[in-house]
Amino acid sequence: MPEFFEVLPPDVARTRWWNQVTHRAGNETVSAYDALGRVTARAITSPEALPAFRRSTVDGYTVLAADTFGASDSLPAYLDVVGEVPMGQAAAVQVAKGQAALIHTGGMVPPGADAVVMVEHTQPFTGDQIEVLKPVAPGENVLQVGEDVLPDAEILPAGHRVQPQDVGALLALGLVDDIPVVQRPRVSLFSTGDELVVPGTGTLQPGQIRDINSGTIQALCARAGAEARIHGIVPDQPDALYEVLAAALPESDLLVVTAGSSVSVRDMTADVINRLGKPGVLVHGVAARPGKPTILAVLAGKPVIGLPGNPVSALVMFTLFGVPAIAYLMGTDVPRQMWVQARAAANIPSAAGREDHVPVRLVDREGELWAAPVFGKSNLIFTLVGADGLLKVPLNKTGLRAGDWGEVTLF
Amino acid sequence: MPEFFEVLPPDVARTRWWNQVTHRAGNETVSAYDALGRVTARAITSPEALPAFRRSTVDGYTVLAADTFGASDSLPAYLDVVGEVPMGQAAAVQVAKGQAALIHTGGMVPPGADAVVMVEHTQPFTGDQIEVLKPVAPGENVLQVGEDVLPDAEILPAGHRVQPQDVGALLALGLVDDIPVVQRPRVSLFSTGDELVVPGTGTLQPGQIRDINSGTIQALCARAGAEARIHGIVPDQPDALYEVLAAALPESDLLVVTAGSSVSVRDMTADVINRLGKPGVLVHGVAARPGKPTILAVLAGKPVIGLPGNPVSALVMFTLFGVPAIAYLMGTDVPRQMWVQARAAANIPSAAGREDHVPVRLVDREGELWAAPVFGKSNLIFTLVGADGLLKVPLNKTGLRAGDWGEVTLF
Repeated sequence: MPEFFEVLPPDVARTRWWNQVTHRAGNETVSAYDALGRVTARAITSPEALPAFRRSTVDGYTVLAADTFGASDSLPAYLDVVGEVPMGQAAAVQVAKGQAALIHTGGMVPPGADAVVMVEHTQPFTGDQIEVLKPVAPGENVLQVGEDVLPDAEILPAGHRVQPQDVGALLALGLVDDIPVVQRPRVSLFSTGDELVVPGTGTLQPGQIRDINSGTIQALCARAGAEARIHGIVPDQPDALYEVLAAALPESDLLVVTAGSSVSVRDMTADVINRLGKPGVLVHGVAARPGKPTILAVLAGKPVIGLPGNPVSALVMFTLFGVPAIAYLMGTDVPRQMWVQARAAANIPSAAGREDHVPVRLVDREGELWAAPVFGKSNLIFTLVGADGLLKVPLNKTGLRAGDWGEVTLF
Repeated sequence: MPEFFEVLPPDVARTRWWNQVTHRAGNETVSAYDALGRVTARAITSPEALPAFRRSTVDGYTVLAADTFGASDSLPAYLDVVGEVPMGQAAAVQVAKGQAALIHTGGMVPPGADAVVMVEHTQPFTGDQIEVLKPVAPGENVLQVGEDVLPDAEILPAGHRVQPQDVGALLALGLVDDIPVVQRPRVSLFSTGDELVVPGTGTLQPGQIRDINSGTIQALCARAGAEARIHGIVPDQPDALYEVLAAALPESDLLVVTAGSSVSVRDMTADVINRLGKPGVLVHGVAARPGKPTILAVLAGKPVIGLPGNPVSALVMFTLFGVPAIAYLMGTDVPRQMWVQARAAANIPSAAGREDHVPVRLVDREGELWAAPVFGKSNLIFTLVGADGLLKVPLNKTGLRAGDWGEVTLF
């Protein structure tokens, strides 16, 4: 039972796979208050100017700048205070030559005035008069109409993940309801393997282990913005697997089968996928460690992944292929928060022609991030507990030397 | 109306504040499947050994290692195949000297055997015999009982944010229900400012603007693991603010008031907080930009924050104080994903004695992260849209030079 499959570099595998994926997640609308982390379905433009009126950026007096030219501590300008601009209302006062009006930060600059003098640069003189001790230029301390954003300007591009500040930007323009976003991709998860037992369903018999990949992959999906449904454990029989996959395909955006760990079960997964439609299996084997025996397939234009049964391999391979596939289905990239650059804290040997992903702990050394390999057998889940992420040793390198920069995908 | 308050460095301010915070978020239990991102309320220990039985890590033949010593291509060891180990069942076969049994990855190593020869290092000989072409050492390709985790070993410490692999680790041990986690802190958000209007409630009048801080801060809370409730806009009247804060305090873990932008309204916030109890306002002014006029207070042992009304200042200051406070209430640290190290892509001037937070876009240059400042007036929300995070210019520096390393808090 030797393994006969063509092993492809991860990037080549991904391209071969994505070239056949024609399906995309659907669209829906949500409230701006619920839009955090969602992906915009189309570019969003501004319906109006922001600010919509001239606003003061300081507390002080709004004036005609020309009245303050040449003012100084020793030779102040004297202005008549003709009123106060109330917050949240149109300025009722009008400011003419030789006049000033009290204004607060965010207040509407009244007609006639073209600048604001900070209160610190004024002092009271007589009853209704102030001294201005410093000149202001026209427009100084004033936000002009549309200075933040102009009508019809694109405020968020299509395929953009909504961040906290974007929620604020939408609300600032009154865009509260009906924000067009991509639906969360629906991922269907299946585990095969006669040794597997659903966690929490009684005592294990000798030789049995609990299915943990469903939970791990579901968590990775949630973090990537998808909703994963655990379909449970499928017996190691081709027809059983065929049946559940066929039933789930129409209602899923991505199918994931975690294959039992033996070669025969993996081959069964590939065979069943090929029976389900064209093009079927496109990649069977990736030049990466851990996780080499990974299957990438397409059915009905939708991506299908066959993961190795080993929990560490499954997690690494889903990070490498599943998480980007979820972003791809949504028309966006993997979240920026998911990786950092760091320097290898030790020599990490690898083999040229193979991309290694090594569990690491991140350490901050005088403002630089270093990645220290976590030791332990590579296929044990507890090696990953306590690791901060996976350091990539690129395909074309025979390893990283201590001090080399590398890319760490964060857990 | 000059501002009279003592301005403290951010770290000093935070310490003075936290020293008085005695309250913590409560505890609850959740399913391991819902535990992603939650914080453990206490250390979790393993109820059993993992693996619970000796497992093969490869496909091959399980043997007595001593039978293979000296085996080579030219001088193979000959063994009798006495059966196959079925997946998910106790090994029914027994392996004695001169014998082997077919075994799959994850299969239970039967009594008598102490190693597994990879199938690639064997070949069929006659009917029930195989040739072993390479020796194995005792224990080779076998996971021993408890090699991943031992009974009573601490698997997750208290105050740990549950990651995808931790979900897998819990499930692997059958820890499905009743995972002890900290409750999501309940944050109550209030906005004051007579110029503010709830977004989505009709046309703005001149001088009015929409309240966007509630939405932005709510999003930051969600990302930090808290649940924020927007209480809406409070009139600029001390008694109105007193009433809503007093009502919310018992049912909140953190109170946040976004003050109107004028000095008088900020002072009102401080006055009302001080009327509500001891110690009240501990910090009124932080040596940081943007966001200097920030209030940090404690009521009933709970943290209270008064944020500046400007949306950018409010966002930066909540990132600086609110997000760590949420982590503090849960007995943990800010998520690792929230910051990266990067090099300044341009000179960034600052003033010694002030901590600046500059919106930046992150750029990858040959494996190193660089932070390029986003230009624009610092108090406009659309300056932040399109930025990836905030680069910190430390208190004791007069700026960062291009190429200097700095810390970027990600949006």
